[in-house]
Amino acid sequence: MMNIAVAQSGGPTCAINASLVGVFCESLKVAEIDAIFGSINGIEGMIENHLVDLKTMILSNNDMDLLRQTPSTVLGSCRYKLPDWKEDPSDYEKIAETLKQRNIGAFLYIGGNDSMDTVNKLSEYFAEISLDVKVIGIPKTIDNDLCVTDHTPGFGSAAKYVATTMHEITRDSIVYSIPSVTIVEIMGRHAGWLTASSAVLHAMGETAPHLVYVPEVKFSLEGFLSDVRQEMSKHKAVIIAVSEGIEVPEGVQSGVVDNFGHKYLSGIGKYLEDVIRSQIGCKVRSIELNVMQRCSSHLGSKTDIDEAEAIGAAGVRCALAGQTGKVMVFRRIEDIPYTVTIETADASQIANKEKFLPKNYINSAGNNIRNFALSYFLPLIQGDLNLVKEHGIPKHFAIHESVLK
Amino acid sequence: MMNIAVAQSGGPTCAINASLVGVFCESLKVAEIDAIFGSINGIEGMIENHLVDLKTMILSNNDMDLLRQTPSTVLGSCRYKLPDWKEDPSDYEKIAETLKQRNIGAFLYIGGNDSMDTVNKLSEYFAEISLDVKVIGIPKTIDNDLCVTDHTPGFGSAAKYVATTMHEITRDSIVYSIPSVTIVEIMGRHAGWLTASSAVLHAMGETAPHLVYVPEVKFSLEGFLSDVRQEMSKHKAVIIAVSEGIEVPEGVQSGVVDNFGHKYLSGIGKYLEDVIRSQIGCKVRSIELNVMQRCSSHLGSKTDIDEAEAIGAAGVRCALAGQTGKVMVFRRIEDIPYTVTIETADASQIANKEKFLPKNYINSAGNNIRNFALSYFLPLIQGDLNLVKEHGIPKHFAIHESVLK
Repeated sequence: MMNIAVAQSGGPTCAINASLVGVFCESLKVAEIDAIFGSINGIEGMIENHLVDLKTMILSNNDMDLLRQTPSTVLGSCRYKLPDWKEDPSDYEKIAETLKQRNIGAFLYIGGNDSMDTVNKLSEYFAEISLDVKVIGIPKTIDNDLCVTDHTPGFGSAAKYVATTMHEITRDSIVYSIPSVTIVEIMGRHAGWLTASSAVLHAMGETAPHLVYVPEVKFSLEGFLSDVRQEMSKHKAVIIAVSEGIEVPEGVQSGVVDNFGHKYLSGIGKYLEDVIRSQIGCKVRSIELNVMQRCSSHLGSKTDIDEAEAIGAAGVRCALAGQTGKVMVFRRIEDIPYTVTIETADASQIANKEKFLPKNYINSAGNNIRNFALSYFLPLIQGDLNLVKEHGIPKHFAIHESVLK
Repeated sequence: MMNIAVAQSGGPTCAINASLVGVFCESLKVAEIDAIFGSINGIEGMIENHLVDLKTMILSNNDMDLLRQTPSTVLGSCRYKLPDWKEDPSDYEKIAETLKQRNIGAFLYIGGNDSMDTVNKLSEYFAEISLDVKVIGIPKTIDNDLCVTDHTPGFGSAAKYVATTMHEITRDSIVYSIPSVTIVEIMGRHAGWLTASSAVLHAMGETAPHLVYVPEVKFSLEGFLSDVRQEMSKHKAVIIAVSEGIEVPEGVQSGVVDNFGHKYLSGIGKYLEDVIRSQIGCKVRSIELNVMQRCSSHLGSKTDIDEAEAIGAAGVRCALAGQTGKVMVFRRIEDIPYTVTIETADASQIANKEKFLPKNYINSAGNNIRNFALSYFLPLIQGDLNLVKEHGIPKHFAIHESVLK
């Protein structure tokens, strides 16, 4: 008999708790697994031996249904990155102590590329000290920027939110008789996956978003203003999707920004709004989708949530099969009918690396997404959750805030 | 035989098109009504004789289903307020010309309190010139600030969005181990109805929102900071709902604002974020729900959409009964089981007036909503639309943008 532990890390998504359910349910099925521990606040809980017995927390199928529709990380999260164990092994020693004391034979870490660095380092360290604990990474991030895997759990639901909301903003933008520009700022510091997903509206016959700017394309303010003027000649209400991570134009970092509106305070959407107001002079507004794009589980993609659960379960089987230092990944077999398999990759292939939008997804002008690329995005946003509601709004699974310290 | 005309005005909501469906369907049933005209861009279309024949636009039950789930105003909107006809009758003369030329016997105007001013003035003018055209107002506004009526179509769906999203933001806010403050800025320039609706989370056992600031209470920056410090002593993640319309503190309008972040550019949420950062120094963020709170029809309240349709239909019956210069209103009979009747009020009772949150809904500290008040809000957010989807996202009814000029 052995116990296992699971932790959640990084920025919230709609799918991290579904992966926790996957780990939990699969572990329940396995005779040789006894306790299933949840580490509070990611790896910090492992260092501080702050774990909860998930069997005392998740008590019923109802609880699991609620967890599947609860956004964010029910066990808390962290942004803590372990130092190199060769330079400073103190965190690692504490983690090893927790694992030994609790008789934990496998540790599953649900997170992004920083967390996969933790998976990589821990597996190396355990090999060094000959501690037989398997370490497996379960991917998650709305940014979809993990290497090797076709996509990441959490991305599909975020993409569904972005597409649905862009659609509604498009309706909201077209009502007045005067020309206008609407800028929608979407998350993604280095990779444009989520911003690009707004282009699925084109599959519905919408002309919006008329312009899409992603960090993979060098941004030029002159080119931007020229693009906007051109689209304004074709459409009364121009809708623009812009990634928060597009490169800030020359001069913005030194003074100009103060005239246009504090970069730090207001982000790129507000900046571009001010540029259009001063340079074109038309009605213009900017909208930041903010944290809603990562936590709107009422719009969760069933495909995403189901896959998140399946990849969590696969992680448990992978650990039991004796693998370690691995990350579970999706391989896409077909777009139609949509088919994926779950495989493994070495954590070192994924840790600290980023996957960018393929160059051929972007049009030659660098300001929109090609239609053929939509077949990548569309399968990921399909299906809806059958939400449990209370008082007309989706119910959440919540542990008392005191448990999360 | 006569024709009728309908127009939509003011800021978008999720329910304005449902009221249009109500007007359209009810008119189809009436033998003496021939053409049903839609005026493009509100009253502007009546002035410019820019109307569409709705029977050529809404062709099937499917079209009506799509309209019910399509946010914003499918016929366009306007912010145009008619001048006093005694001072300048030119607009009125043009409208009368349109009505005569098109043999229109009734005009229904879906809008907020500015539009009810139009209803009032038009009915007065038509009486003056002895033109037998009935003018009826159909209320709508997410602000819920119309007098006489218990509530306004569009508010329930917006309140459901606010409550659902505040719930998800609460989950998103609690994940890290360091204390934090999250400020959510909600629409409502003078009335706090929508901001107050965030308190329905208390009915679900949530402690959030921990603080709720509405325009009906005089805002004090010292009181605010003291409130925040007190809540931080009780909760790791403090969640604050704030109305965009709370009174700007002394000094903000003259210079201080530039140090904290342009009032015009960034709104009260960003301002309070900066105040907390500089005065308390903790992790803090602000989130603006922006236009999503008025156009997220994927979260439409079935109660709201059904009522919007019913009140549109009732408006047609009211006109046919020979009434004019009236606004259709809801009277609430019971909270449980929720029962409302549709009645009429004189447009002059509603035009240019605002209804504020009752004083007794607000706690004695002026920083939250009393639990008993939730029975007002809860019935309005019940039920979900059975959404028609395409490619995984809700489909919209859209007329070509060229029709809207």
